[in-house]
Amino acid sequence: MGKYFAAVDIGATKTTVSVSSRSAILARVYQLTRKRGDRQTVPRQIDFLIGTACGQAQIDRGQIAAVGISTASPFEKSDGYLYLVAPNICGGLGEKREGIENDWTQVPLERELSGRYPVLQIANDCISAAVAERSFGAGRGEDNLLYVTWSTGIGGGAFVDGHLLTGKNDNALHLGHIVMNYHQMDEPVCGCGDQAHLEALVAGPAIAREYGEQPPEVFRRCRSGEPQAMATIQRIAAIMAIGLYNAVAVLDSRLVIVGGSVSKNWDLLEPLVADKFYSCFPALTREVVFKRSELDQYLGDMAGLSLVMPESWVADWQKRRPWQQAPDTTVLEPERA
Amino acid sequence: MGKYFAAVDIGATKTTVSVSSRSAILARVYQLTRKRGDRQTVPRQIDFLIGTACGQAQIDRGQIAAVGISTASPFEKSDGYLYLVAPNICGGLGEKREGIENDWTQVPLERELSGRYPVLQIANDCISAAVAERSFGAGRGEDNLLYVTWSTGIGGGAFVDGHLLTGKNDNALHLGHIVMNYHQMDEPVCGCGDQAHLEALVAGPAIAREYGEQPPEVFRRCRSGEPQAMATIQRIAAIMAIGLYNAVAVLDSRLVIVGGSVSKNWDLLEPLVADKFYSCFPALTREVVFKRSELDQYLGDMAGLSLVMPESWVADWQKRRPWQQAPDTTVLEPERA
Repeated sequence: MGKYFAAVDIGATKTTVSVSSRSAILARVYQLTRKRGDRQTVPRQIDFLIGTACGQAQIDRGQIAAVGISTASPFEKSDGYLYLVAPNICGGLGEKREGIENDWTQVPLERELSGRYPVLQIANDCISAAVAERSFGAGRGEDNLLYVTWSTGIGGGAFVDGHLLTGKNDNALHLGHIVMNYHQMDEPVCGCGDQAHLEALVAGPAIAREYGEQPPEVFRRCRSGEPQAMATIQRIAAIMAIGLYNAVAVLDSRLVIVGGSVSKNWDLLEPLVADKFYSCFPALTREVVFKRSELDQYLGDMAGLSLVMPESWVADWQKRRPWQQAPDTTVLEPERA
Repeated sequence: MGKYFAAVDIGATKTTVSVSSRSAILARVYQLTRKRGDRQTVPRQIDFLIGTACGQAQIDRGQIAAVGISTASPFEKSDGYLYLVAPNICGGLGEKREGIENDWTQVPLERELSGRYPVLQIANDCISAAVAERSFGAGRGEDNLLYVTWSTGIGGGAFVDGHLLTGKNDNALHLGHIVMNYHQMDEPVCGCGDQAHLEALVAGPAIAREYGEQPPEVFRRCRSGEPQAMATIQRIAAIMAIGLYNAVAVLDSRLVIVGGSVSKNWDLLEPLVADKFYSCFPALTREVVFKRSELDQYLGDMAGLSLVMPESWVADWQKRRPWQQAPDTTVLEPERA
């Protein structure tokens, strides 16, 4: 059996692969996610990147015991395999999007890769982040936790009673797509085409649209006391609070962990979110605790790795935190492959 | 070890207890739920009703192996025990309600009863209904199911990946209290005091408020083609569809089972619910199937019993369906106790 593990992070923009030994993250490579060619393009790129990372780490790729993939989603299942049907990777889904020069309606991720590695685990990036936070981050020891990413999109992952929720097609916790106003009129349109989804109301682009500047600038102005910026953030934090309340009303979570680029301003956001959240049905909200993600910047490695890491490694990794000493990323040119 | 099982159904209005043997439901008694006296009143009444049911069945109450309680909720946990904090039973919660002549802020259900029976399982009425439907009703064999009751209130219970969701305080799936309009202005007020909750928008009282007649009459008029009644039901079904979609976006369910008094008109409601539901994010909705509850009228016995029934009984009960031949209920006068 192999003694190394590969972690893959597939985003709409870039794909990162790292390989780890028992004691450390050995190498990490990244490349823009390829979206040209046939439907095997993405699996082929992952395979190439795993090989490249193994080369950098000077290990034999035959020694890879398992691959954990954390990816953009959603998925569909067919013939027992998980297929990627992410609209920001598959150009054949819905309206043609800028920069997506393919007509894929699905990416055969599991079918193409499952035969090549002894173990393959795939989860969407928020579900795998929930696993990582529970093993190594802000969620250690908590059986009822909700992880939420608050970034250019909104998504979640959750444990209930110690069980990781995946669902029939591994699409659980698509929190960004819950409808926040049943009237669905005069509300912003989501990337998926529907109106009044949480993501369309509170994610980074919503902040930019509402204020007219990118989120980092809006938060900078908040910090300098600019009333309009403060009002924007307050309004958006209150909507997010209701979205989180809705999830908690379904899951009865004890701990809500917030990650993602917008949540870097959690010091500003937390009191605003909390103010609205705890005003909702006290029987369901009063014992809920919020924490900022601890692994945020390390999720690229740790989300995928957490899906496959042997139980016997966990205590040592919790103690030594080797992800904090990972090597620099090698950026591969798009044409090098 | 005892060979009989007791099933308890605690509602805001009445409490029903039945006792079952390996082969049949032997006796069933019911009484108005007592809401006067000290905080031990409800546990004491349950104990009394179990004793009475055992007497009717001519069995020794010492032969009760386990008690399954399906109850109104929510709960809170304290010292490891589950307490009932249902506002329609505890008069000390929030505003004083009509007919609740007590000042209880909680009912010590588990603490009072757990020492008296070898096994005690407590779940809210919708979570226990989900268990019953999965064992004996419309959800047999389904690992990803959502049960929803559509009645004078709205509530749910769910299995995800074969795991029953309970949550930190056994309050999972409080679907009636999700916020359906984040503006929360000009929206109906829920029993819990908040605005725009699903329950306030679609439960029986919402239908009555919107149309000006009780739900059975509204549905009767629908069936006779009355346009205003039809418009009311259409509008309410579409809101329910969005509520169910929100739950499915969180849980990735395959099967949605609808029970409760309003759902008796499922033949009228299903096409209206489906029309809106499947218009939501296809990646999350297209494989979802709706079914009407199969156990609806039997949940008073089967919800509590399913929580404690030995695994070895299940196949036989599935085949013989003894709940359909249960004896008549003995109604106990309120003052008899």
